[in-house]
Amino acid sequence: MSSVYGDKIKISLFGQSHSDAIGVVIDGLPHGIKVDFEKLQAFLLRRAARSILSTSRQEPDVPEFLSGIKDGVTCGTPISAIIRNINVRSGDYKGLRNTPRPSHADYAVGQKLGEDADFDGGGHLSGRLTAALCIAGSICIQYLESIGITVGAHIYSIAKIKDTPFDAVNISSGVLKEITEKPFPVINDIIGERMKELILEVKSEGDSVGGIIEFAAVGLTAGTGSPHFGGLENKISAAVFGVPAVKGIEFGNGFACTELRGSENNDAFCIDVDGHVKTKTNNSGGINAGMSNGIPLVGRAAMRPTPSIAREQDTVDLATMSNTKLIINGRHDPCIVHRAVPCIESAVAIALVDTILASN
Amino acid sequence: MSSVYGDKIKISLFGQSHSDAIGVVIDGLPHGIKVDFEKLQAFLLRRAARSILSTSRQEPDVPEFLSGIKDGVTCGTPISAIIRNINVRSGDYKGLRNTPRPSHADYAVGQKLGEDADFDGGGHLSGRLTAALCIAGSICIQYLESIGITVGAHIYSIAKIKDTPFDAVNISSGVLKEITEKPFPVINDIIGERMKELILEVKSEGDSVGGIIEFAAVGLTAGTGSPHFGGLENKISAAVFGVPAVKGIEFGNGFACTELRGSENNDAFCIDVDGHVKTKTNNSGGINAGMSNGIPLVGRAAMRPTPSIAREQDTVDLATMSNTKLIINGRHDPCIVHRAVPCIESAVAIALVDTILASN
Amino acid sequence: MSSVYGDKIKISLFGQSHSDAIGVVIDGLPHGIKVDFEKLQAFLLRRAARSILSTSRQEPDVPEFLSGIKDGVTCGTPISAIIRNINVRSGDYKGLRNTPRPSHADYAVGQKLGEDADFDGGGHLSGRLTAALCIAGSICIQYLESIGITVGAHIYSIAKIKDTPFDAVNISSGVLKEITEKPFPVINDIIGERMKELILEVKSEGDSVGGIIEFAAVGLTAGTGSPHFGGLENKISAAVFGVPAVKGIEFGNGFACTELRGSENNDAFCIDVDGHVKTKTNNSGGINAGMSNGIPLVGRAAMRPTPSIAREQDTVDLATMSNTKLIINGRHDPCIVHRAVPCIESAVAIALVDTILASN
Amino acid sequence: MSSVYGDKIKISLFGQSHSDAIGVVIDGLPHGIKVDFEKLQAFLLRRAARSILSTSRQEPDVPEFLSGIKDGVTCGTPISAIIRNINVRSGDYKGLRNTPRPSHADYAVGQKLGEDADFDGGGHLSGRLTAALCIAGSICIQYLESIGITVGAHIYSIAKIKDTPFDAVNISSGVLKEITEKPFPVINDIIGERMKELILEVKSEGDSVGGIIEFAAVGLTAGTGSPHFGGLENKISAAVFGVPAVKGIEFGNGFACTELRGSENNDAFCIDVDGHVKTKTNNSGGINAGMSNGIPLVGRAAMRPTPSIAREQDTVDLATMSNTKLIINGRHDPCIVHRAVPCIESAVAIALVDTILASN
Repeated sequence: MSSVYGDKIKISLFGQSHSDAIGVVIDGLPHGIKVDFEKLQAFLLRRAARSILSTSRQEPDVPEFLSGIKDGVTCGTPISAIIRNINVRSGDYKGLRNTPRPSHADYAVGQKLGEDADFDGGGHLSGRLTAALCIAGSICIQYLESIGITVGAHIYSIAKIKDTPFDAVNISSGVLKEITEKPFPVINDIIGERMKELILEVKSEGDSVGGIIEFAAVGLTAGTGSPHFGGLENKISAAVFGVPAVKGIEFGNGFACTELRGSENNDAFCIDVDGHVKTKTNNSGGINAGMSNGIPLVGRAAMRPTPSIAREQDTVDLATMSNTKLIINGRHDPCIVHRAVPCIESAVAIALVDTILASN
Repeated sequence: MSSVYGDKIKISLFGQSHSDAIGVVIDGLPHGIKVDFEKLQAFLLRRAARSILSTSRQEPDVPEFLSGIKDGVTCGTPISAIIRNINVRSGDYKGLRNTPRPSHADYAVGQKLGEDADFDGGGHLSGRLTAALCIAGSICIQYLESIGITVGAHIYSIAKIKDTPFDAVNISSGVLKEITEKPFPVINDIIGERMKELILEVKSEGDSVGGIIEFAAVGLTAGTGSPHFGGLENKISAAVFGVPAVKGIEFGNGFACTELRGSENNDAFCIDVDGHVKTKTNNSGGINAGMSNGIPLVGRAAMRPTPSIAREQDTVDLATMSNTKLIINGRHDPCIVHRAVPCIESAVAIALVDTILASN
Repeated sequence: MSSVYGDKIKISLFGQSHSDAIGVVIDGLPHGIKVDFEKLQAFLLRRAARSILSTSRQEPDVPEFLSGIKDGVTCGTPISAIIRNINVRSGDYKGLRNTPRPSHADYAVGQKLGEDADFDGGGHLSGRLTAALCIAGSICIQYLESIGITVGAHIYSIAKIKDTPFDAVNISSGVLKEITEKPFPVINDIIGERMKELILEVKSEGDSVGGIIEFAAVGLTAGTGSPHFGGLENKISAAVFGVPAVKGIEFGNGFACTELRGSENNDAFCIDVDGHVKTKTNNSGGINAGMSNGIPLVGRAAMRPTPSIAREQDTVDLATMSNTKLIINGRHDPCIVHRAVPCIESAVAIALVDTILASN
Repeated sequence: MSSVYGDKIKISLFGQSHSDAIGVVIDGLPHGIKVDFEKLQAFLLRRAARSILSTSRQEPDVPEFLSGIKDGVTCGTPISAIIRNINVRSGDYKGLRNTPRPSHADYAVGQKLGEDADFDGGGHLSGRLTAALCIAGSICIQYLESIGITVGAHIYSIAKIKDTPFDAVNISSGVLKEITEKPFPVINDIIGERMKELILEVKSEGDSVGGIIEFAAVGLTAGTGSPHFGGLENKISAAVFGVPAVKGIEFGNGFACTELRGSENNDAFCIDVDGHVKTKTNNSGGINAGMSNGIPLVGRAAMRPTPSIAREQDTVDLATMSNTKLIINGRHDPCIVHRAVPCIESAVAIALVDTILASN
């Protein structure tokens, strides 16, 4: 298994859902970054379960920083932080080894690790690990902010309910920050209310629902990135698929561009009112051949509906190799899209930091 | 810039469109792989421009192997191969430095590399580099075949014309191979004819068109891959975005899953007629938490319409920082989707080899 | 800075001498390794300061494992462990920023990190970080043991006092283990007593002394490793120079081979009494072209005398850019060679695990 | 096998002694480096066999650059170069598979690769691959020169004949260049003559001899490098052990420091006549805790005597598992130390470029 990301920086995630702690080491980040711990804590709260929309497992998620930050400033050495696992119910996950949950990793991990696998609470594969990701993400976001780059995301859709998309050409740092500060990060709050209603409805049905998260970064220097394998899309996707439940990613208009003609899809260059090079449209999502063209970077990640649902499901009994039924107990989310927004921001930010530091 | 892929193997692409040669080094591949050079040449032909659907630049694309293969068998040392660039028209690309082509990398690369950039024929960013990718891809596909894994792809759509999709649960090695041997790789040949007609129509309009490529791999051992950053989706996307023009990637039902309930989207396990564990649906694309569940791996890559079109386009003159018009000369493809099919297969195969060799 | 080692596994060290904790994450180690915590604790004790030969700083050095091991067995997910820093005297290191200690990293780190550097107790550069290295080392040694490979080391010399060297051709697993279990790991205990006397003598003079550590590994499969950059010597040296105070490394007879003729230095092959291939001598240290030849791997690391001495030394005042004198306060070792033995074993073991897991 | 070096740059060596070509790809080097091809060719000539001191195999060693350099300047894309193998005698190496040459890799590689191994001329393990290393090395040296860093080396010893060592505190860029331009690079030419005589004497005896190469780099910024695993010693040793025949490496006074007291070994800081920080001695070789202290970097690599000698040697017959005798035919060097000087310079330069580009 590999839970390490990065070429220039190394983000090393560790911990299982029911181990003593989860945590992260961030190696290679520059010194001199001021870390605002209040911002970081607020960022983690966005990910944490804090409403009737989410699981009833309540973890305080207060990271303990062990090294790398002195007097609130990164000192150029590896940053490490842990979060203790305290609200652990170990009985919920017995038997999953032999009756794997549909669309969960139980079967794959059982095949991979056999008797040595830790299934409790999802083990190392638990969504809980995204708390560690978000610690790294918040620090990377703060670092990017200090060099003029803002990263943000919003809920683009829950099921078929769609928020207003980003204005891909003109989105500003200010707008990005404003959206990310919302408790339920959408551009159109009325649509946001409808999304919440749907999530509660689905919850009452013992079911779950997915959605799409749209992310953006403004302030990138044109030329950041690389063609071929060191490109922004390669690096961002390699990080974003590290967020559980992501099943697709696209940049610019993404899959929609496949239905357009080149003459419709091309982003014509122009000189804007301030005399800067800009594009009239941003179907490329700010990326050409893996490199930023200086226009906002925009993309979307597809999040599947949570596989843990309260309904009875078909599965197999691996001990007897026969078909059987399964009801999943434990605490689950009817939707993780809203909680995943800071996770996607984190993955994007981590990828951007790695790309920027790797660029000549 | 980084044109190197892989953790366990290292695929190093080199060359510019108009340099003496392009090529690839493959480091870390096992010894004892029999390389069928005829198959490899046929594979490269699928990528090459060979019909009225494509650019008029005709390169023989016959690789010269320099090392790593002896008597047709890999000898455990780095494999290297080059293809000479012989059909080079250097005059076509003058002036692109100051009047960047819309949705091309001219602007980004000019900002990155300044006067040192090689713009001729797209330089290192040229689609021509995919010939080198396909050399590595063909060898990886042959290696995977030797250990029971088949990789294949087809044109899923050209603009709004859609081929029959893969049968994600039941697709077999035989079907995959049959499709990839077609000159125009679609499942439904009648739809394929309509796709070709559209491409010619678009060509006659001096325009271009995009599409979607669906890829699959059968034969993976359950447990192959890793959660978090070493997962199949992370590795495959990091490779596939190395193919120029890819703007999105999804696994299983991908973006479509975001509109389903968990109860609809979950892949119930069952025991098949042969007594093996299977799933009734394959919305997960054969991947759970970054690991294969032993069901066919299925995904799709979105390819944008070629940005090089014959029509006049708006752009800027960077010397005077004013708006201007541009007509692109040179040899271009009205559609690269059909030529990109072996490139996507190559990227997927390379990623699979790296993942398999990295798995404990 | 980079405190991450490995291609196949990733050992990520973190912590500063006076931060809340130090620790390590080990990513990529196989599942199913039984970890004997008593052995691990005994291993750490070998490194810890526990006698009049060493610093008076007394840290219990009891690691807390946070993840990756369940019921005493590695579960295939990242292993993490921390050690709290509790015996911290923060006043000792004031002023080192401007009056750098000779042969310490104060000057270099101050130039690198400026005001952001953490100088307390040596910060991240402190020898204390080797406790984290030894946690990883002990687990790697136990893993290697489980696959038939034994790693060990002894004090080859303190100043000019030399222990009996390893019998490079015939050294056995049993002998290696026996030596490493000694409180003062030498082959000839009488010589060991003379070494201790010298260390105490040097201590009483407010001075320090260096020495050489000889390491060995038996049980490697012939062919383990790689020519060029993935070789045993490359990998081992890249790890061993991560142990502070190492200034040289050699394999086989090392520097001494430069004074021999090829006819004297070559290791003739022969069939031993058991019918196995062996060499009559082992001047190569068991390594040919970066690969094990199946004969014991033997090498030596040179450890300089501790730069922290009690005597007044010449240095500079960086505030005034003038020459000045310095007396170093704090708790220091007159010799770290004996404490470094398990550190060298750890570095060798980590390198071997990474090489073995990376080998096809 | 891994023949790729580097974190920030990737140097990928390929080729076998008797394959069509050998070569190198250099990925990640900055754009805008002027490459002096005459200097590069002269550098390769230093490595090539060009005197009665060396093998009679005569290869022109004129590299053909395929990509990455345009109009004599690196264009920021991967640099690739090949050298054709033309003077190949394939008959010389038959039978080595079963009767491995003492201290050669025949046995190890046969165990590793079995029937797939290419033994001809040493295959990929041949010293010939150092020509590819030197292509990368020369470009790295030229790049370092352009940013104020000079790398050089000299023959420190042949057997027991020792050259004058570098003046480790005061060595200048000018002196380094002067030495490296000599046909037989020693500081004291009279001693150089004695060395040559010894090599000829040894040659006439059908024997071989080793020696030590001392390397240095001046102009490094204090703070370059990293503690733990990204340090200058880690990076340089990982590269230098990639040069065949190296069996040891040391920095500063290296193994000799183990016999000194700390009070003797410490490098006192002082302000020099120009008002700069300097050290009075340079026993640390310019490196503290993996980082440059701004003083010249100095180290030494031990090269064993060439294992290919003309005399009859003891070995085994692996087909019959019995002892036998072997006489090695073919073209061999009585000493490779003088030819290895540019190889060591190359390895050091490559490591420095990687370290510098990786440093924050």
